[in-house]
Amino acid sequence: MKDFFKVKTLEQVLGYTSDFPVVGTEEIALNQSLGRIIAADIISDQDLPDFPRATMDGYAMKASSTFGASEGNPAYLTVKGSIQMGESPNFAVHPGEAAKISTGGMLPQGADSVLMVEHSEAIDDNSIEIYKSVAPGQHVILAGEDIQRNEIMISRGRLIRPQEIGLLAAFGIQSIKIFKRPVIGIISTGDEIVPIDQTPGQGKIRDVNSYTLASLIEKSGGIPLTFGIIKDSYDALFRQCESAIKTTDMVLVSGGSSVGMRDFTTDVLSSLPDSKILVHGISISPGKPTILANVQNKAFWGMPGHVTSAMVVFEAVVRHFIDHVRGYLAEKISSYKISARLSRNVVSANGRTDFVRVKLIEKDGVMWAEPILSKSGLINSMVKADGLVEIDINAEGLNKDDKIQVALL
Amino acid sequence: MKDFFKVKTLEQVLGYTSDFPVVGTEEIALNQSLGRIIAADIISDQDLPDFPRATMDGYAMKASSTFGASEGNPAYLTVKGSIQMGESPNFAVHPGEAAKISTGGMLPQGADSVLMVEHSEAIDDNSIEIYKSVAPGQHVILAGEDIQRNEIMISRGRLIRPQEIGLLAAFGIQSIKIFKRPVIGIISTGDEIVPIDQTPGQGKIRDVNSYTLASLIEKSGGIPLTFGIIKDSYDALFRQCESAIKTTDMVLVSGGSSVGMRDFTTDVLSSLPDSKILVHGISISPGKPTILANVQNKAFWGMPGHVTSAMVVFEAVVRHFIDHVRGYLAEKISSYKISARLSRNVVSANGRTDFVRVKLIEKDGVMWAEPILSKSGLINSMVKADGLVEIDINAEGLNKDDKIQVALL
Repeated sequence: MKDFFKVKTLEQVLGYTSDFPVVGTEEIALNQSLGRIIAADIISDQDLPDFPRATMDGYAMKASSTFGASEGNPAYLTVKGSIQMGESPNFAVHPGEAAKISTGGMLPQGADSVLMVEHSEAIDDNSIEIYKSVAPGQHVILAGEDIQRNEIMISRGRLIRPQEIGLLAAFGIQSIKIFKRPVIGIISTGDEIVPIDQTPGQGKIRDVNSYTLASLIEKSGGIPLTFGIIKDSYDALFRQCESAIKTTDMVLVSGGSSVGMRDFTTDVLSSLPDSKILVHGISISPGKPTILANVQNKAFWGMPGHVTSAMVVFEAVVRHFIDHVRGYLAEKISSYKISARLSRNVVSANGRTDFVRVKLIEKDGVMWAEPILSKSGLINSMVKADGLVEIDINAEGLNKDDKIQVALL
Repeated sequence: MKDFFKVKTLEQVLGYTSDFPVVGTEEIALNQSLGRIIAADIISDQDLPDFPRATMDGYAMKASSTFGASEGNPAYLTVKGSIQMGESPNFAVHPGEAAKISTGGMLPQGADSVLMVEHSEAIDDNSIEIYKSVAPGQHVILAGEDIQRNEIMISRGRLIRPQEIGLLAAFGIQSIKIFKRPVIGIISTGDEIVPIDQTPGQGKIRDVNSYTLASLIEKSGGIPLTFGIIKDSYDALFRQCESAIKTTDMVLVSGGSSVGMRDFTTDVLSSLPDSKILVHGISISPGKPTILANVQNKAFWGMPGHVTSAMVVFEAVVRHFIDHVRGYLAEKISSYKISARLSRNVVSANGRTDFVRVKLIEKDGVMWAEPILSKSGLINSMVKADGLVEIDINAEGLNKDDKIQVALL
């Protein structure tokens, strides 16, 4: 039996992710960092906020001055002054005293809470009556309540979202250490493939995979680097692979779905210096004829030639390797799925993890996943699809109305 | 009663989206178009593929030549030749004949199907026996099976994903007409706000909102344009707003959570030439003190000053206006949510749509949403959060174990 038939399970293949090193780091301006991955824990160097602030318009006071106050039994307080926004009050508040304050204003010495302006009435310029008691800390953000000094604010491996950028801005951090975007090479192979700016002659097709794979790499936080189209020649492919590995962190060789081409890609991958074939076929559908080699500690993939198969393999397998290599630790995030009900039965072979393309349709408040059953060479089926449903290796299919989880495409 | 208290519901506010015009269009290179929005239907100018292709390695033949073939009763076929990849076969296949073909190869005249190589055995150089029958069209992609000529391949308003790029590449389309990214101005206001590169004195804080809002705009497909910090002065804010509206498609004025500042922002917005206040308060929490004006047919927002409130208002309200203005029609996509169970009771006021920040935690295969109950001025609560749960305006809260939908942050 040929090597080709010794397929590995999806789980076994994903077990190889940690064989590959994480990329290096770089410094980047905060306002350029959206979607990047933090490369070192970020520790707070002060309390946030570093002074107590009002979160409502009203009066700052000691909570104890308000105890027992109600509509029927108002308390009377002396207004000591008014706090200007952005200024440090130059007076303190004692029992029985209050200070006028706006949202965001700094509490004066002695005050521990803010009473909303709606619960008070001015008697004259210097006194108010209040109809409600407040608790200590009410309508106030205390110093250090958001973040305390010497706290890990954001840990290594976290994705930078708008809120992480906001937190860093609050600390005046203008540039941060992040992981580099991994550079991922794409080599297209096949005598029948022509560049997209050419009109393919009879029997030839345009190089679609270079475009879909480059976009998937971009979407996954990598930098795609396309090496053009290699004709079916061992020497040409060997030279291109040898060259690609020098300038990239990972390489995808696309094409070669035929048994001949696959053997050929395997021969090249195993002949590269310092290389080892790890996977020669995965028990998934579509996408079985996928090859993974470790070449000089970089993941080198032989991707299926059918465009849909290549996309599914990318989503189900390659993306996890990119996440690992780019230092992303919150793996949970990338696995969030949409719940839906299956609109019809789907058959699957036991011993194989099937990926079914589905269209999501909301009807009467229920999200339905409608399987798109089409040949894996058809790109239009991916255009129609909103997501992928994974059918477990031990399942023989799914039934109509089954609750399923959809990974968005 | 003040204008401020005439709040509108979330639904009423979202009803204003169509008041604002969609941005103009531009032409962009295909490999730069990921995440952009198609501005005109794209019609196919030919069949895809434009010739019938094999999807397996094997033999091309007329299906009728195989009828009745089985292990016990093989059929015998004459091998007419071998088809080279990327070439148009120079011979036809008649009944009783076959041609060797690889995946992706062009079917010869007369052939309508491919028999997998596994189901055949070579007898000599010119003949095979086959153990299985094939159906017409089996293991073949027919001409036009993916896309037919004159079909709308991708319609106006669709998001460009890797698969759309692949489909366009297949047709040799190297540049496409897309909607421009809307330019969205951010004006920060407040005497207490300092630029992030300054050390704030006592009572002052750094300009966090400009950073979170810019990142949210970027994430939503817009181009953020920050206009710096305006001190609490009517004239300065008026001048800055008047100038911002000239170079942008939408403006967010951030800050001004205090009643005084809010009145002040309202005065400025209503005094701008050709302006009308549409919304003065929304019945959502957090985010009630939000203002929307139509200024010269552009949406002009007075956003709440608290960082968390501003982010929630952006996600729940502003983003839908950006989607409309950038021409995005597949509104369904942006509303996909994650199903989870609530880990504890949450109280909500009737007559108000509440947005609760939650952390998602997977435990024993169940996704739990853990509410983060914290003051809306705390950015760290957004850093801890994975998503937002919306509590309906007519609900008085949610119970522990309730099934809920989480919009990812």
